[in-house]
Amino acid sequence: MTAPQFKQLRRAYGFEEVAIVPGDVTVNPEQTNIELKIGKFTFAIPVLAAAMDGVTDVTFAIEMNRLGGLAVLNLDGLQVRYDNPKEILAEIVRTAPDKVLPLLQKIYTQPIKENLVAERVREIKAAGAVCAVSLIPANTKKLAPIIEEAGADILFVQSTVTSARHVSKSYRGLVFSELCKSVKMPVVVGNCVSYSACLELMRTGISGILVGVGPGAACTSREVLGVGVPQITATIDCAAARDAYLKESGRYVPIITDGGFKKGGDVCKAFVAGTDGVMIGSVFAQAKEAPGMGYHWGMSSPHPALPRGTRIKVGTTGTLEQILFGPTSVTDGSQNLVGALRTAMGICGAATIEEMHKVEMVIAPAIVTEGKSWQFAQSGK
Amino acid sequence: MTAPQFKQLRRAYGFEEVAIVPGDVTVNPEQTNIELKIGKFTFAIPVLAAAMDGVTDVTFAIEMNRLGGLAVLNLDGLQVRYDNPKEILAEIVRTAPDKVLPLLQKIYTQPIKENLVAERVREIKAAGAVCAVSLIPANTKKLAPIIEEAGADILFVQSTVTSARHVSKSYRGLVFSELCKSVKMPVVVGNCVSYSACLELMRTGISGILVGVGPGAACTSREVLGVGVPQITATIDCAAARDAYLKESGRYVPIITDGGFKKGGDVCKAFVAGTDGVMIGSVFAQAKEAPGMGYHWGMSSPHPALPRGTRIKVGTTGTLEQILFGPTSVTDGSQNLVGALRTAMGICGAATIEEMHKVEMVIAPAIVTEGKSWQFAQSGK
Amino acid sequence: MTAPQFKQLRRAYGFEEVAIVPGDVTVNPEQTNIELKIGKFTFAIPVLAAAMDGVTDVTFAIEMNRLGGLAVLNLDGLQVRYDNPKEILAEIVRTAPDKVLPLLQKIYTQPIKENLVAERVREIKAAGAVCAVSLIPANTKKLAPIIEEAGADILFVQSTVTSARHVSKSYRGLVFSELCKSVKMPVVVGNCVSYSACLELMRTGISGILVGVGPGAACTSREVLGVGVPQITATIDCAAARDAYLKESGRYVPIITDGGFKKGGDVCKAFVAGTDGVMIGSVFAQAKEAPGMGYHWGMSSPHPALPRGTRIKVGTTGTLEQILFGPTSVTDGSQNLVGALRTAMGICGAATIEEMHKVEMVIAPAIVTEGKSWQFAQSGK
Amino acid sequence: MTAPQFKQLRRAYGFEEVAIVPGDVTVNPEQTNIELKIGKFTFAIPVLAAAMDGVTDVTFAIEMNRLGGLAVLNLDGLQVRYDNPKEILAEIVRTAPDKVLPLLQKIYTQPIKENLVAERVREIKAAGAVCAVSLIPANTKKLAPIIEEAGADILFVQSTVTSARHVSKSYRGLVFSELCKSVKMPVVVGNCVSYSACLELMRTGISGILVGVGPGAACTSREVLGVGVPQITATIDCAAARDAYLKESGRYVPIITDGGFKKGGDVCKAFVAGTDGVMIGSVFAQAKEAPGMGYHWGMSSPHPALPRGTRIKVGTTGTLEQILFGPTSVTDGSQNLVGALRTAMGICGAATIEEMHKVEMVIAPAIVTEGKSWQFAQSGK
Repeated sequence: MTAPQFKQLRRAYGFEEVAIVPGDVTVNPEQTNIELKIGKFTFAIPVLAAAMDGVTDVTFAIEMNRLGGLAVLNLDGLQVRYDNPKEILAEIVRTAPDKVLPLLQKIYTQPIKENLVAERVREIKAAGAVCAVSLIPANTKKLAPIIEEAGADILFVQSTVTSARHVSKSYRGLVFSELCKSVKMPVVVGNCVSYSACLELMRTGISGILVGVGPGAACTSREVLGVGVPQITATIDCAAARDAYLKESGRYVPIITDGGFKKGGDVCKAFVAGTDGVMIGSVFAQAKEAPGMGYHWGMSSPHPALPRGTRIKVGTTGTLEQILFGPTSVTDGSQNLVGALRTAMGICGAATIEEMHKVEMVIAPAIVTEGKSWQFAQSGK
Repeated sequence: MTAPQFKQLRRAYGFEEVAIVPGDVTVNPEQTNIELKIGKFTFAIPVLAAAMDGVTDVTFAIEMNRLGGLAVLNLDGLQVRYDNPKEILAEIVRTAPDKVLPLLQKIYTQPIKENLVAERVREIKAAGAVCAVSLIPANTKKLAPIIEEAGADILFVQSTVTSARHVSKSYRGLVFSELCKSVKMPVVVGNCVSYSACLELMRTGISGILVGVGPGAACTSREVLGVGVPQITATIDCAAARDAYLKESGRYVPIITDGGFKKGGDVCKAFVAGTDGVMIGSVFAQAKEAPGMGYHWGMSSPHPALPRGTRIKVGTTGTLEQILFGPTSVTDGSQNLVGALRTAMGICGAATIEEMHKVEMVIAPAIVTEGKSWQFAQSGK
Repeated sequence: MTAPQFKQLRRAYGFEEVAIVPGDVTVNPEQTNIELKIGKFTFAIPVLAAAMDGVTDVTFAIEMNRLGGLAVLNLDGLQVRYDNPKEILAEIVRTAPDKVLPLLQKIYTQPIKENLVAERVREIKAAGAVCAVSLIPANTKKLAPIIEEAGADILFVQSTVTSARHVSKSYRGLVFSELCKSVKMPVVVGNCVSYSACLELMRTGISGILVGVGPGAACTSREVLGVGVPQITATIDCAAARDAYLKESGRYVPIITDGGFKKGGDVCKAFVAGTDGVMIGSVFAQAKEAPGMGYHWGMSSPHPALPRGTRIKVGTTGTLEQILFGPTSVTDGSQNLVGALRTAMGICGAATIEEMHKVEMVIAPAIVTEGKSWQFAQSGK
Repeated sequence: MTAPQFKQLRRAYGFEEVAIVPGDVTVNPEQTNIELKIGKFTFAIPVLAAAMDGVTDVTFAIEMNRLGGLAVLNLDGLQVRYDNPKEILAEIVRTAPDKVLPLLQKIYTQPIKENLVAERVREIKAAGAVCAVSLIPANTKKLAPIIEEAGADILFVQSTVTSARHVSKSYRGLVFSELCKSVKMPVVVGNCVSYSACLELMRTGISGILVGVGPGAACTSREVLGVGVPQITATIDCAAARDAYLKESGRYVPIITDGGFKKGGDVCKAFVAGTDGVMIGSVFAQAKEAPGMGYHWGMSSPHPALPRGTRIKVGTTGTLEQILFGPTSVTDGSQNLVGALRTAMGICGAATIEEMHKVEMVIAPAIVTEGKSWQFAQSGK
C-alpha cells in the first residue's frame, strides 16, 4: 500500500505581513535612481496609475506623465462609452450606496464607441504626454490597430487573470505572440501572479507584466471566486520568473505590481519583493485630479451577473503631486510615496531599484506589532 | 534515558485561510463541466442543500432538483414530527432570541410519526424529483425499509460524527456493510473529517461521504466539545482517502464537503481542496423558498442536555435560483454560486471538477489581505 | 569564524488554537470512565474547583465533593484571615471597579489566624467530604502539621511558579522531599508548565502536579511579568514528563491542568493534550454556590507592590450541578462540562481518559474558523 | 535549466507574540542583580529614558539618575532650539489633534543654539548626575567637542537607522572609528536591528548599541517606509552579534533595546531575548515629571516632507519612582517595571541579567491567549 497523497499548501504573504530590514550600509536618499523602463520609454519614477475609471482620465494621464510617471487610460470603460463621461461620473458619485451597484451595472452596458477610442488617445498625445491605454483581451484584436494609428505609445492588455493560452470551443482567443508582431507599441499584459504563468507570458514577446489578482481595495475576487495571491508572494514569484527569463533570453521584462497599495510602506515592500514598478488605484483616486471625485470602483464591479467589488468612498486628500512627492502633514504614509521610496532605499543602502531587490525582508504581521494598537486607542484624535 | 515524547499537532486550515492560484491556462467558463454523480444519479450542478429544518422541506427539495442540484430532506426533524410543520416553523420564527432555545428543545421532543416519513418521500416523488432523505444512525434500521418502499432514491445517514465502528455494551450499532446490502438506494454517510475514518467508511460499500464536523454557521461543536476540523484540511484528507480507495478498489466514491460555506469563494476553494460536491446550509436558508423564513438552526441545537448551536437570523436575500445562478447586484459572493464556480474554473484553466482538484492553492489568511479592512472602514455604506 | 548563535523560540498553543479530530471508532458516551485518582482517593469526575476566594468556601467544597469532584480550600486567603469571611466578601462585591484593587490589597494584609486554619478543615470533614486545602510554600512548614491534625486529606502547595529548588541567601526554602516524608497526606504541587520542572518535582515524591502559569481569567501575569505558557503546550509537556517519570519510577503521578477554561471544549482539549484532571476557576465562580456572588479575583491580585489581576464580574449562571452535568439551554459551552467531556470521548472513540490522551488534535485557530464570526454578527441576539 | 530563485522571508517576532517559560529553579527576587554597565559607568537598574522631547528634560534626567537609571537628553530638539522650552511644550500640549502636526513641523525648523547645547549639559552636571546626551549623526562632528567640554559623560548618536558606512556623493558621513578616538566619552550608537549591521558598528569601537527600528508608540515608520523589525527578533539578532563580537575581540558591548515597551512584561521579555538594558519612551511620558505633560511624540514626527508619527496622548499616571518601583494598584503592568523584572527573574531562576539571557521563551501570541478577551469583555469596569 502506498502512502496517502495529501494536497500541499504553500504560505503566501501580503503587504501587511512583512517588514523591510535596514541595511548594513546607508545611502543618501537624494542620490537614489528609481527609473522604470518599459520598451524604449524611461520614466523618472516607477509609478503607474491604474486603468480604472475613478482614477485615470485624459487630464489625469497628462498630469501623471508631467510628474515623471505613467497613467493608463481604460479603453473599456466610461471614457469610450460616453461622449461626456463627466456627466456619468457625477451620477455615480451622487447615487446612494445601496443603489450604486445596479447603476454601475446599467451604465457599463452602453457599447464602446470606436471614434472615442481614437479621440482619447489623440487628446493625450496632443499634450505631448506618453500615451498608455488598456484594452481587455476580447477587444484587443479589433481596437489595437485603431489606437496605434491614433498614436498610442504603450498598450496594456488586462483582465482579472490573463494567460498565454486560452481554451474555448466557440471562439479563438487572443494570441500574444501574434499581437506583439502586429503592433509596434510595447505590450504590457496582466494580470498574473504565478511563476509559471508569468514565465509563459514573457516568452510570447511582451514587454511588461502586471502582477496582482484580487488585492485591490475595490475588488472582492477573494470573496466571490476565492481566487487571489497576496502581493508580496505574487511579486516574489513573478520576479523569479523575470530573472529566469532574463537568463534564458537575455531580455529584461519589467514586472509591475498592480493593486493593494495603501501607503508608502506598501510601495517600498513591493520593490524589495522584486518589482520594477507599482500600479496604484485607490490612493490615486484620492487625488484632486482624479475623475472619481473621491470615489473608486473596479472594472469587475459592474459585471451584470457576478459583480466583484463595489464603489468605495476614498475621499480627496491632496493633489497628485502631493501624493507623489509631498510635502505633507499626513503621518499614515498615504502621501509622499516617492519620498518614502527614496528614504527607505537610503535606509536599506540601495542606490538603485536593482539593489532594492536584494534587501532583506522579514515576516512581521502588523497585527501584532508592538505599540501600534495602543497608539490608536490612546491617540489624541 | 529515552527522549521525551511530546504530542504532535498538525496545522489545519479553513476556507478563510486559503486562496486559489490562477492557472497558466484559462478556459471559457461556459464550457466547464461541473456534474456530480452519486450512485446512478447525475446532477447538473454539484450542489446539495443540507438536511436542516430551516433549509429543506418538500417544496424546497423539488425546486432544488428542478435547478439541477439535490436537497436532502431531514427525516429526524419537524417534517416527520408534526403533521403541519409550517405552524411550528412560524412559532420558532416569532419567538424572542432569549427564549428560542428552550422552545427548540421542547419542540424536538415530539416523537417521529412513521406515516409522515413515508408521506414526505411520496410528496417529493410525486413532483418527479429525485428524492434524497436523511436519517440518524439510531433510526436507520427501522426507517430505511419504509422510505425505500415509499420510493426514496438516495439515503443519507448523518450524525455529528459517524464512524464505521460504534462501540456500546447496551445496544448493537448500525453496520453500514449490512445496510448497503439490505437497501437498493445508494447510501451516503456523514459526517467525517479524517483520512482513516473516511477510508474505513468507504470500505463498507457506501456511495458517498459527507465531510465536515463543526464548521456550520449554526453549530457550536467547536465551543462545546472542542471537536472539529476546518473544512479545507478535512476535504484534503478525505479526498486523499477517496483517491486511495479508488486505487485499492477501482470504485470512485464521491465526497461532499458539508457546512461552513458563506460565499462563492468558499465553494470554489472546496473543489480545489478535492471535493466532488458541496452541501450548503445557512446560505440556502436565505432563499425565499427556505422554510425557515430567514432563520436557521442546526440539528444538534435542540439537544435537551447539551445543545450545540442556536437559531441564527440569516435574513432572506433572493430566490434559490438567484443564489445559485444570479444575476445579482450583491458583491459579497453570497449569490450566483454556480457562476462563481464556473468563473473560477475558467480562471484556473479547469474544464472539469477533476481538473479543479489539481489547481494550486496557497495559505493566505483573509485577516491580513491587503486593502480589505480599509475598504470596509471607508466604504460608502 | 563560527556561525552566529540565535536564540530559538518554540511555538506554544492555547485552548483556542486547537481542535480535536474525531476518531475512526465511536463509543457510547454513557459508558466512558472518567475517574481521577490522587493518592488513595478516587473521584468520579476529573474536575477540581480552584483554591480561589471567589470560588471555594466550606459549603462549596462539600457540594463539589458530593457531585463527585474535589474543591480545594485556599488557606492563604479570606477564609483564614477573617472569622466572618462573608462580611468581607460582601464588601468586595459592592465596591466600585475603580476602587476594588486598593480594597483587595488592604483586606489581604490582615494576618492568617491559625485557629481558623484548623476550623475550616474540620468543617469540611464534619460533612463527610474529602478535604483538600491549599497553602503557599512559605507557610507550608508551619501550617501543614496543623491541617493534618485537623483531618485534611490532600495538601496542595501552590504559588505562581513552584520549583523543586528555590535559591535564597536569607531563608531556607520548602524542600518537597522532606515535606512528603513528614506528612501522610498526598501532596499536590503547582504551578509548573515545563517538562523539566515537572519531572524534577515528581522526583521529590509528590502525588500530583498543577499545570498552568498565567492562563486564568483573573490573572495578568502575561502582561505584568511576561511569564506564561499557553495551556495546551504546557499540558503536553507535563504529560510527557509524567510518562517519562512513570517509565523511570513505575509510579503514575497525575497532572491537573489549572486555569484558563472557559467552556466544555477547553476541558475536552486539555484531556486530549494529556491531562488527568482539570482545575477550574472562573466558570465555577459563576455557580450559585460560589462565595464570590458573581465576582472573581486571583490570589496574586492583592499583591501590595505588583498586583497581577483584578476583580472581574463573571455573573451567576446556574447551580454547580448544572454547570457540571446540565441539562442546559446555554449553547456557548459554559454548562454541562462533564456531559461535554463524555460526548467528546464518545465521538473520539475513547472509553477512558488514558485513551483520550491518544486522540489526535490539530492546530485550528478559532479566529479563522469558518462561519463563526458571521454567526455572531448575524445572530438574532 | 536551473531551479527558480524565490526570495526567502524569515519570521520575526514582537513583544506580544512571545512569553517567558518559568525555570526549573526559582530564586529570591530581592537577591537578583540587574546592573547595567556602559563604559566605566554602572547603573543600579538597566533602564534608560528615551531622548525624546516629551520624555526627558534636565529635571527628568536628574531624577532618573537619582533613581539608579539614566535618561538621555535630546540635543536635536526643543531643549536646544528654544531658551524657554516650557513655553513651546505648553503650546504643543494645548493644540488640537488635527492641527498639531503642522505646528510640530514649524516648531522644529527653529535652528539649534550652540550655547544652549552646552548649558543643558552643565545643568545636569550641576546636580551631580551622570549626563547622557543624544545627537544626530549630521551634527555630531560639530557638537561633540562642545558637549564634551561642557562635561557630558556619555554620547548617544541616534537616527532612525544608523550604519557603520554611509554613502553620499555630496558630503562625508560621520565615521564612528574616528569619533571614538576623538572623544573620551563612551559612544552609544543607534538604531540598528540586524546581526551584521550591529556587528559592524561594534567593530568601530563604540561602547553600546540601541536596538530598534519602528516599534515605538509614537512612530509610524512601519506604515510610511515599510521598514522595521519587531523587537524580540531584533534583540535576539543583536545579542548574537554582541556575543560574536565578544568572542572575536574580548570586549563586551552592551545592547539596549529601544522602543515599543508598554508594560513590565515587555521589559522582562527583552532581557530574555538578550538585551542588557531597555530604553523606554511612551511609558515614561506618563510620569508626572515628564515635560510632555501627558503627551508624547517622536523625533521623526516633525519631518517637514515625510513625517513619521504624530503626537499621542498617553496621560499622566504616576511619579517616575512609582512607574519604576511601585507600589501600585494598577494591574496592567505599566507600573513597577523594576519589580516586575526582579519577580520574573525570580520565577525564571535568573540571579543576574546574564542568566536571564539563557531563559527559555516560547512563541505564544497574546491574541489567542485563553481567558483574556473574555476577561476584558466581562470585566466589571
